[in-house]
This record gives sequence, C-alpha cells and structure tokens, in this order.
Amino acid sequence: MTRPAPATARIIAIIGAGLVGSGWALVFARAGLRVQVYDPAPEVRARILPWARESATALADAGLMEDVAAVIGRLHVVDTLEAALDGATYVQESVFERVEVKTDICRAIDAVMAPNAIVGSSSSGIPASRFTEGCARRGRFLIAHPVNPPHLAPVVELVPAPWTDAAALADVRELMQTVGQVPVTLAREIDGFILNRLQGALLNEAWALYDEGYAGLADIDATIAHGLGLRWAFMGPFETIDLNAPGGIVDYAARLGGMYHAMAQSRPPQPWPEDTIRRAGEERRAALPEAELAARRAWRDKALTGLAAFKKASGLAP
Amino acid sequence: MTRPAPATARIIAIIGAGLVGSGWALVFARAGLRVQVYDPAPEVRARILPWARESATALADAGLMEDVAAVIGRLHVVDTLEAALDGATYVQESVFERVEVKTDICRAIDAVMAPNAIVGSSSSGIPASRFTEGCARRGRFLIAHPVNPPHLAPVVELVPAPWTDAAALADVRELMQTVGQVPVTLAREIDGFILNRLQGALLNEAWALYDEGYAGLADIDATIAHGLGLRWAFMGPFETIDLNAPGGIVDYAARLGGMYHAMAQSRPPQPWPEDTIRRAGEERRAALPEAELAARRAWRDKALTGLAAFKKASGLAP
Repeated sequence: MTRPAPATARIIAIIGAGLVGSGWALVFARAGLRVQVYDPAPEVRARILPWARESATALADAGLMEDVAAVIGRLHVVDTLEAALDGATYVQESVFERVEVKTDICRAIDAVMAPNAIVGSSSSGIPASRFTEGCARRGRFLIAHPVNPPHLAPVVELVPAPWTDAAALADVRELMQTVGQVPVTLAREIDGFILNRLQGALLNEAWALYDEGYAGLADIDATIAHGLGLRWAFMGPFETIDLNAPGGIVDYAARLGGMYHAMAQSRPPQPWPEDTIRRAGEERRAALPEAELAARRAWRDKALTGLAAFKKASGLAP
Repeated sequence: MTRPAPATARIIAIIGAGLVGSGWALVFARAGLRVQVYDPAPEVRARILPWARESATALADAGLMEDVAAVIGRLHVVDTLEAALDGATYVQESVFERVEVKTDICRAIDAVMAPNAIVGSSSSGIPASRFTEGCARRGRFLIAHPVNPPHLAPVVELVPAPWTDAAALADVRELMQTVGQVPVTLAREIDGFILNRLQGALLNEAWALYDEGYAGLADIDATIAHGLGLRWAFMGPFETIDLNAPGGIVDYAARLGGMYHAMAQSRPPQPWPEDTIRRAGEERRAALPEAELAARRAWRDKALTGLAAFKKASGLAP
C-alpha cells in the first residue's frame, strides 16, 4: 500500500459515483492523479465530496494517507459525461450492473472518449463482451472489477473481452499497480470472474447448510469471522493449504482432496430457496434493524481501514 | 478474546500433541486450567514445552497474555495416557485423522476416563459416529474441531454424534466460551462440518479455475488475500452480503442469487486433477522452497497473533 508518484500525470474519469465509483475516485486522487467524476443523478453528485472528505480523513487518521486537502483538491465533480471525459486517458465506469445500463453508458462513453483512452468497467460478474460489442472502440474496453469499497480493498480483477487490445490490458495493469491496487489478470472471460465465483461457491454451500438446519446464520458467520477468514485476510486459499499439511499442497491434496470431492458430489446445484432467503432476512433484520444498515457499513469500513493499517504496519500489505 | 477466570477448576487432558494438540494445551492453560498433555511419541512430547514457551511469549508480546510463567506452569507433559486422564473432566483428542487411528484412541480413552469426563475430538471433517460407536461411554464423545492453530483462531465447531448426551454438548459449549473460544454448534452430523465444507466449496472452485487456466495460483491467492478475505477477517459471509446491497440480504439475493446459481450449474463436481495438483506443487515450491515451509508457518502464526491483537484492540474480537 505504498503510493508512489504516478509515472504519468494522466487524467482519470469516473463515470457513475455511487459507493464503488466514489471509492475509485479516492483511489486515483490518493495516488496523485486528477480525477473528473460524473454521475447522472445530481443528488449522487452532491454526496461525492463530503463522503470523500470524511473517508480521506479516516485514512489519514489511520496513517494511510498524508495530505487530505491535496487529495480532495484533485477531485473534480462535473455535470456532464463530456466534461468528465475531457482529457481523460483512463475511464472507470461504475454504473448499475444491468447489461442494458452498461451497454448504454459504454456507447455514450465510446462516442466521446479520446482515441487513446481505455475504459475499465467495475462490473462484478458480467463479462465486457456482453455490453461492449457494439462500441466503435471496443478494443479499448475491459473489466476492472474492485472489491467494495475499492479504496480499502486493493484487489482489482482485470478481465479482457475477446476483442480487448493486449496493450490496453497491460496499460491498465500498470496503472493499477502505480496507484497501489493489486491487479489480478484473467486469461479470458468467465461469468463472475474469480472473486465472485469463489464467493459464490462458498455462499451456495452456506445457504444450503442454513437451509438444511445444520446451524443458524450467526453461527455460520462466526465460523468465517473467527476462524476460516483469519488466514484469508493476508494469504490466499492455496497458500493456506500449502502451509496446512507437513509436505505442502500436494500432501494436503492427497490427504483431503477425496473428502472435498465427496462433499461436492453430495451437493447438487440448487437455487437459493426463497423461503430460506426470507427467513434469513428476518433473522438479519432482528440482529440489525434496517435503519442501522448504514451505520454498520460505516463500522465495516472503519474495520477495513484499521485492517489495512495493521497489514501495512506488519508487512502484510501488497 | 477476554479470558475470564474459569467457573470451575477442572483438569484438561490433551491426547495427541502435534501442532493442533499443543495449541489446545495453550488455550486451556492460558485460561487458568491445569492441562495434562500426552502424546505417544517421545520426540513430540519433548517439543511441547519449548513450543508453548515460545508461543506464549509471542502472545504476551502482542498484549494477548499476561503471566507467561504461570501459563507454562499449568502445562504438565506426561508419559502415559492414564496419567493424562487422571482427574480430567475434559479430554481434547487431536491424533492423526484416520478413522482407524481415531477409533483406537477413543477406545483407549473410553477404557480409562472418569465417568463424568467428556471427550472432544479435533477431527476436521470425520463425524464422531464414524469412530465412537463401540465406546462404552459413547454418549460422552463429540467433535470439538478448532482452526489451526487453535490458540490464535478462536472458533470451535461442536458436532454431536446421534448418541452424544445433550448435557455433554452443553457443558463443552460452556467450557469453550469460558476459555475464550467461540463455539459454533451444529444441530447434527455432516461430513466436513461447516468450516471445511465452506473451505472445500471455495477450494473446489479455485482448483477448477486454476486447472482451466483462467489465472495462476498467486493471482487466485491475491484475490482472497487482498480482496475477498478482508471482510471475512471480522464478519461472516451472510453479514457481508447483508451490507453489500442497499436493501440488505434479501435485496442481495434478488440481485445476485441467479448469477450464483448459474455458476454452480456450470460447475459439475470433479476431483482435483492429479496433473494440476502436481503443477500447483511445482509452482508453490518455486515460490516457497520446501525448506522454508516451517519458517513461513511461523510467519503465518506471527501474522495471526498480530491480527488477534488488532481485532482485540478494535473491538472486533468475539
């Protein structure tokens, strides 16, 4: 999480400035780049700077940012798509995740963007080929999927469409490294990419265990929050198992691969059951009333800020 | 992770003192209980106290333990099973995870244990009914599965066999809470319990993505270590998705449940492929030579110690 001065003084356009887009704006401004932020909704635009000031102050308090005023000074909220794209060589698109919405915004960006610009979409699971095919500059579009919130979780999945220029992919990878994110590059498209396929596999099993009455939501959550999730906060699943058998990952696979295969065989895919979702919703709202969701999200972000500071201080950050 | 004085001054027997059993010994000694540790291998017995002293010192340095000498003074390494069980009302069994090995040790414990003792097995995935059926006191046996290492990851899965006394289960749950662990109780047996079923689901998907060439081991690991794993270090998968859609978990399921179901349908269960495991082994050993595995495990435990201290200081510990 060092933030070296960027190699080039490029201008970044942020299109769509909900929580994900706003987080992205902070990522680039923190790294010293000029950021031009646009959202079609005036009320969303009005929230960007107050949110950024508050979040930047929290980062500074945790020792993760230095000059808050300078960072905020690099954020320019603008009223039109054209103003956001003016001079921008990288565009981070974070609009609502529906194919039609993504298709429309990409066509609008495509019509105005500079020829040398690249557009990364924050899509969390829909590959770019599903919504960039009709763009004139479709070779300049790819997926750049962050974790929410991007300024606190550095990983970014880069997923090229079949028609994405290799040079554009390489350029975005370098940009992400320069601004302190951790780019992970997929060789080709797959629905859900890596991150949400891993999350989905775990969630599908968690829903099934809950649905079948093995344990309550809170106990399943505790299994991760006070157990399995601890190692994963600083090392991945492969390194975890590599260290968890005397002879490493091959030894681990020999010991436990059969058990895991049998588990998968005992679990045919099923949709998350509607009754169970409703019951889970009631259980969650009893634990955390709807009116407290926003405060709990702020708690989460505070915890993530502290975790980032801990990882940085302990040499566990990327 | 507060360590209140135990309600009862019970004696704990640790049977099998590899890394898991040794960690358990420290858990109980840290909480103020007398611990009698036995392992059939003299060389394993010889390692227990030096390891415990080093680990306790690391905990004390991180502010997670006070009087190291007093804690170590509660650890009694003994030369026979009988000596370990003498006076013990709780027995934590952590021998090699094979049904035959577990069956043999449980029969041996069964023959010597006090009538009021309870035996918790550290089995990570094999239910107790598979190896306690022939025990005279089989109602006093259950699973108490920790994360490795148990003194740094507080969760414990309690899984009763069909014949486990409800009172024994309740007693172990209370004991685990008393010593500062986080017990999670399963309603009934299932192979892999909760923790390793969740880990297995994620690993199965990770192996498939690697096998199919979407990304390398290091990039898949980074997706967790610098992304998905961060929130899971202090909240579970259900709370994570509850906070990740404006309307909470029901809203999240409506938005993304279909995508996750489609992913599961596209992924029929397959064994971890042998060639791929071999290739992963080579990739891991290139990144971390076999001779450095032990040092890296020490690095992991240091990181987990720091993470526990961070969570405690931030109010994120149980």
